[in-house]
Parts: sequence; C-alpha cells; structure tokens
Amino acid sequence: MPDIHKLLWPRSVAIIGASSDTRGLRGRIVEIMKSHPYQGAIYPVSRSETEVQGLKAYKTVSDIPEPPDLAALIIPAKFVPQELERCGAAGVKAAIILSSGFAEERGEAGPALQKEVQAIAKKYDMAVSGPNGEGFANTAAALCPTFSPAMDPGDVPLLPRADRTRGQVAVISQSGGMGFAFFDHGRAKELSFRYIVTTGNEACLSASDFAEFIIDEGKTDAILMLIEDIKDTATFARAAEKALRAGVPLIVNRLGASEAGARAIAAHTAARGNDAEYRALFARYGVIESNDLDEMVDIAAAVVAMGKRLPAGHRVAIASSSGGGGAWVADACALAGLDMPILDDATRAKIDVYLPPYGCSQNPVDVTAQAIHERGYAEFARLAAESPNVDGVILVVTGRHPRFLLEDRDHLIALGRDSGKPVLLWSYTRPAAVCVDLLSEAGLPLFTNVHNCARAMRVMADYRAARETFLKG
Amino acid sequence: MPDIHKLLWPRSVAIIGASSDTRGLRGRIVEIMKSHPYQGAIYPVSRSETEVQGLKAYKTVSDIPEPPDLAALIIPAKFVPQELERCGAAGVKAAIILSSGFAEERGEAGPALQKEVQAIAKKYDMAVSGPNGEGFANTAAALCPTFSPAMDPGDVPLLPRADRTRGQVAVISQSGGMGFAFFDHGRAKELSFRYIVTTGNEACLSASDFAEFIIDEGKTDAILMLIEDIKDTATFARAAEKALRAGVPLIVNRLGASEAGARAIAAHTAARGNDAEYRALFARYGVIESNDLDEMVDIAAAVVAMGKRLPAGHRVAIASSSGGGGAWVADACALAGLDMPILDDATRAKIDVYLPPYGCSQNPVDVTAQAIHERGYAEFARLAAESPNVDGVILVVTGRHPRFLLEDRDHLIALGRDSGKPVLLWSYTRPAAVCVDLLSEAGLPLFTNVHNCARAMRVMADYRAARETFLKG
Repeated sequence: MPDIHKLLWPRSVAIIGASSDTRGLRGRIVEIMKSHPYQGAIYPVSRSETEVQGLKAYKTVSDIPEPPDLAALIIPAKFVPQELERCGAAGVKAAIILSSGFAEERGEAGPALQKEVQAIAKKYDMAVSGPNGEGFANTAAALCPTFSPAMDPGDVPLLPRADRTRGQVAVISQSGGMGFAFFDHGRAKELSFRYIVTTGNEACLSASDFAEFIIDEGKTDAILMLIEDIKDTATFARAAEKALRAGVPLIVNRLGASEAGARAIAAHTAARGNDAEYRALFARYGVIESNDLDEMVDIAAAVVAMGKRLPAGHRVAIASSSGGGGAWVADACALAGLDMPILDDATRAKIDVYLPPYGCSQNPVDVTAQAIHERGYAEFARLAAESPNVDGVILVVTGRHPRFLLEDRDHLIALGRDSGKPVLLWSYTRPAAVCVDLLSEAGLPLFTNVHNCARAMRVMADYRAARETFLKG
Repeated sequence: MPDIHKLLWPRSVAIIGASSDTRGLRGRIVEIMKSHPYQGAIYPVSRSETEVQGLKAYKTVSDIPEPPDLAALIIPAKFVPQELERCGAAGVKAAIILSSGFAEERGEAGPALQKEVQAIAKKYDMAVSGPNGEGFANTAAALCPTFSPAMDPGDVPLLPRADRTRGQVAVISQSGGMGFAFFDHGRAKELSFRYIVTTGNEACLSASDFAEFIIDEGKTDAILMLIEDIKDTATFARAAEKALRAGVPLIVNRLGASEAGARAIAAHTAARGNDAEYRALFARYGVIESNDLDEMVDIAAAVVAMGKRLPAGHRVAIASSSGGGGAWVADACALAGLDMPILDDATRAKIDVYLPPYGCSQNPVDVTAQAIHERGYAEFARLAAESPNVDGVILVVTGRHPRFLLEDRDHLIALGRDSGKPVLLWSYTRPAAVCVDLLSEAGLPLFTNVHNCARAMRVMADYRAARETFLKG
C-alpha cells in the first residue's frame, strides 16, 4: 500500500511546472504555498526558468539534491507520464497531479494517459492523488499545494485560535472547487479544518483511502465528503466502519443524483455512480447525507462541538426571545422530523417564575425580550435541558447587538461545559463577530439558518442511534 | 378607512414612554430614531423626565405644541388605552403600539385591553398598528421607530447607493424580530428595502392592509411577508390580486404549519390559522411560498433584479468553471423541478470553440477554469442563454478571488443589461465585497446557496406562468 503519510506530511515538495507568472495556475500554486509558513523545502521544477518567485528552480526532478517527499505535477496532461516516471525513478514516493485531460476527456488519448499514470504509480509504489484534482491543504503543516483561491491567505488564518479548537474536521472531495469551498464556508464560522484533500479522477488513491488514513490517524472528529463515485466499495465500507466505531461521523453528499448531475460528473471526473448500492452502504454505516454545502458545514460544526453529547432521541425544547422565531424553529423542527413535546410541569414552573404574563413556557418557550434582558439567554436553555421530556435544546438568539450575549458570557460558557444534552443556537440576525467568538469559546454551535439547526439536531440523534445499533451488533 | 400614509410617512412622531436609559427598550427606540437622519420632529413623552437624550420631553401628548402625525406607544399594556385615548383626543391620526400584554397574554385582562384599543382606534378613525409589534422602518424617510437591534446604524447604510437600486422590497411581518431579520440578511446582500413593517397582534391594521397600501403606492417591486394568521381574507385577496396584476410578487412564509408552531403563534400573537384556506388563496394569486428566511431574501433579490425578464419555462442551462459545482447545481435544479436539456448543436458549437478537450458543452457546460481564465465568465452565460432549448441560465463562479470577475466587468454589465433571459449566479466560495458590488451594479443576482439559486429560478418561472394565467382568465 502506498504511503499516504508521505503525501500529506512531506518534508519537501517539488512543484513540477512551477512558473513565475502568478496570473496562471502554475504560478498561483507556488504563490499560495509560499504565503503560508510551511517549514519544509519547496523546489520549483521548470524547463524555462532558473528562479521561480525567489526560489531556485531545477530543470528536472532528478536535479534536486535530495528526492523530495512529494511532487505536485501541474503540466499538460501529455507530459505527465514521463514526469511521473522521472519522479519514481528519482525516489519520490508521493505525487499529486493537478493537470486535467485524462479519463474525463473526450476521445481516447486522455483515458490512455490515465492508465499510464496508474501503471507508473504501481511500478514505484507511489502514493498518487488525482489527476484532475486541485491538490490539498494540511493546516497543521501550513502546507497548501493547490491553486485554490480559498487558500489565499486572507484576514482569516488557516486555523482558529488553538484554545478554541474543540475538534477538527477533514474534507475529502473529488471536486477541487467544492472541496475548498467547504473550508471557505466553514472557516468563516470558526470551524477548524485539519485536511482538505481533493482527489479528482482518483486514478490511484480514492477518497476512501484518504478517509481510512484520516480515521486511523485519530485526530479528526468529522469528515465532510463530496463523492462523485465510490471507486472501491470495499475500501469505503472498511473506512466507514472504522469511522463509525471511532464515532467520527462521515457527512456525505453524493453528486449526480439527477440525470443532468450524472451527465456532469461523467464529464467532470469520468464518474459512474450506483445510487442504490451507495444508499445501502450509507445506511449500514450511519453515514450522514446532505446535499447542501452550508448545511454540511453546519452539521460538522455541531458534531465537533457536541462530541459525545449527541441527543438520545428526537425530542427538542425550543426557547426563544422572539415569539415568531420560536414558531419558525418549531416549523423547521417538524419538517426535520423532530418532536416538540410540552415541557413537564416542574420545569415549566421553574421557567414561569422568570416570565412576564405574555410569555409562555409550553414549548416553544416564548421567553420574551423582557426576560432575556433580565436573566440572559443561558438560564432558559439550562432549565429547558433539565426537562426529562427532551433530548436537546434549540435556543433562539439575536447576535446582532452583542450586549445580551456578552453580559451572559459566564453562564453561556458554563452551559457549553456542563450541559449533558446538546444545545444549539440559532441567531435570526447576522451575528456580530464578538458573538461568534464567544459562542465558539463556549462550544455552543451557532447557526444562522434555522433549517440547518433543526437538521443538525436530527442527524446527530440519528447518528447516535445508528452507532449504538451497530456497536451492539 | 384610517390613513396608513400618516403612519408610515409622519412629519412628526411622539414617543410615549420615552426614556433616557438606553439599556431598556424605551430608551433604545429614541436612540435608534435619533441615529438616523429623519427630518421630522421627535417628541419624547415621559412622566418623569423633562429631557430625553437631548430632546425636550413632554408630560403628555396633549402638551406637545402641534398634534404629532404619529404616536409610538411603549408603556405597560394597562396604560395603553388611556394614552391612546389621549392621542385620539389630541388629534393624533396614527399610532404604533410596541407594548406586549394584550390578546397574546394568558387570562382575560390582556384580551380585554386589546378590545379597548380597537374601540378607541375606531372612535378616532386612527391608523393603529400593533399591539405587540416592534414598530417599523421607512428607509426613504430615514424613520425607524423601533427598538430592533437590526436598525442600529452600523457599517451598512439604510439604503444601497442610489444608482444601484433597480427596485425595492418591503417586509411585512407580525413578528418584529423576524421582520427586521429580513432586513438584516437582505441588506448585507445589497438588497434595497423601502419598508419594514411589523404588525404584532394586528388588533386594527393587518398585514393585508399594509400590503394593499404598498401595492397602491406603486414603488415596491416585491413584498416579503411573514404571516401567523390572515385576519381578513377578503383584504388579503384584494391586496394579492392587485399585487399580481402589478407584477409585484408576494413571497410568503406562513408560520404555524406544525403543531408546535401553531402553539407558538397562538402564544405569540394569539393567531389561529386555517391552512387549507390559506393555501387556496396563495395558489389563486400566485403567491410564492418559502419557509426559509435566506431563501426568501434570495428570491426577492432575484425578482427585483430580473424585473419583467422572468423565465418563460422550467428549462435551465448551467455553465460552471468547476465541474463539481456544475453537478451540484444540476442536482439542485432537479430537486427544484427544473429541466436541464442538452443544448442545441449550434450553441454547443459556439461554446466548444472556447473549451479545452476536457471541457464539455452538453449541459451542464463544464467550462473549465482554463477557459474562464482565457474568456471570462460572461461570454459563456451569454452563449448559453441564446440556446432556444433553455429559459434561463445559472452561472457558477467563485467570487473569493475577484480578479476573473473584475476583469470581466464590462461583459458582465452588458450581460445584465442585454440578456432577455434571467441569468443567476452561484458563487461556491464566499464572494469578495468588490464582487458583490460589481454584480449588484450589473443587476445579476448572486447566490451563495445553490438550492436558493435553483429555487429562485423555479419560483420565478411559476410566478410568471401564474400571472399570465390570471391575467388571461
């Protein structure tokens, strides 16, 4: 088995096809790699340039003083086999191929090139990802061999502040654009990513291989996967079983469910899927399915924050400062297949003490703005969670004006730390950055879309049930 | 009929219950009103203060030198009837009641107070909104008599730059929190709002009354409505018919569709809905239904941008620089009930000229990153829209790295101006502010959620069909 560790954790990387022109993809990959504090060596390989963006360039991979651990190939498809062969001969043990024009191409030339790639990888026992991928990112190593604009250094660092990191997610996607889009959306929500791996046509290594590596490594708490097809269902099943045993949810969208989508993935990565087979696999291993990128990211954030405190059932209490907001959550929960039983009398009595006469403790609890002003948010979620009638709580807040959340800081942190049941927050206004920060610190998942919030509660309950059933045997 | 114009366009406003304490709601309303450049007079009315936040305060409304056009009441419910009576006697012709504790309150006192409010409004022919509302905003007048944190002046002004305003939307919501949440979400997307009206218990004026006023006024291009119940279906039907004739879509969520949601709205605004009756009304008048706040805002932005250029049918062309992105849109379109026929040969031939061999012009058009780098985005949307096989185009872009959109500026503006068919854009990464700005200028609706994009195309086609059927029949 080729060594994926060499691929994801190289001490040195050769960029074959590197360019000084940062307007093109061959220059962008070097520019992006250099913009992050990767500690290993970067070796541009160029037939025409002796220096690339301030780095000494080499004519061929065999001119590099030491064999690099990883080669990133970004050259026309027709030159890929010969350069990959050269890498193998030079002792390179891992490669990513970012070039397009292989099995996804019309005609016979592209598919033939892909077969050559497979043969060379096998000959040298190289770990090869792609072709037609967009590279990967390893945030711990600050290594981003990709031209994805999502990995340009911006105002958001690769990783959230370390003390906020309750867990990390990985992304595995055949599509490069979509793979890095998960990072782009999730990082804005303070989600912490360990890897983003894009696998393209999967001529050699498949998404399942990477999933198995990541599960075996044991440092990732949820995996977001965008699948066009599953190249090897046995490997997928093995990875999925390990993930389920480890309690690492796989959150998966399988593209190509529609006829036009199927046409698109065939053109994109030469994928041919088998829906019925996939659904059976997913059901067996508790795979969480979603076809919405934002929802997938939100689910990942929720499972990472909640850890082992997943809901024991489908019964939810809703507490809201906005009566309309409470009703909206209730409708969303019903659509998600959740139950909202009336709270028990003892819990209601404790809540009623705080409510004005126009408030209501049934479920949804209409806390009223007045009671929030007086008591803050956390106390109502804490009381509702104590009801034996419910398995989790959704708390409706407005994070636009940060005062009420900030003043409730200690209680929110205690709630996130002590609650044995999941508490999810929906802010019906766009939350202020300080609120995102506080709730991230408290480990309380914050949603801006009400349906994603309800769906996250639902799939967490289903995942827990599927896992318990599987482990019982 | 009471004069809604006096309510929404007052030359002077009395705040009855105004306070200097900006930590409480009675101080917040004054603070927020003062923070916007409203040109009319603001008269605080306070029993205990002679000056409120720098404004001279009056003991009672009758002490104010001129009868104010509008009174905003934010005092305990039990004092509301006597103060409203005083307003009527003083010649005030419009009032909003932000206090809670009326029909939505447990027991008999609150409902009785609401009946008193109704009688006083009738006696003086006053335009009364509420009680239990959160006020309103009139952006053209810079008038925000509300304590909603969404109307705090922030980094985003009340209105987009005037030359970007292709049309405006209004919000009418019983729920105050949710009503202003539409503004908060939409304004961030450069949507232009004319009114946000929150109606609470609708003791006197209902959402339908405001809708009719807004349609009659003729300056609003779409109305977002959050309904808990319809107080008077005849008025709703009249307003909806006028809206349909005028081509102003009503985009409506009816809360309380679930059992727990119905409990919540009963507790919130004493609402009792009749689902079957509402559905029949909505179907008859082409009302666009959605239960997702983000989706509702996105649909509003699309209809405002597209104006009369709504899709003539359900056939969509997809053009994407990301193969995976194209497949994702295709799946979303299929879920939304759209068709994605293969493009005609003539159009394909024109597109193929630009594509590398691993691109694909079928549908989705897999444009490839390379072709986007060479030709930009707009040309592919323009070519696809020319196909007689389709009624609209969805163009997949990445707006994170602005170069390719900015370099394509002139073509994008020409596309927005000249395309006879709707072109919607989905950015799978979070778009840079300059991209949001450019596409807003071009009048090309930009979505960050793929399902909202597909659904918007679908409901625009359905709305056009419903309107044509209605006008014929």
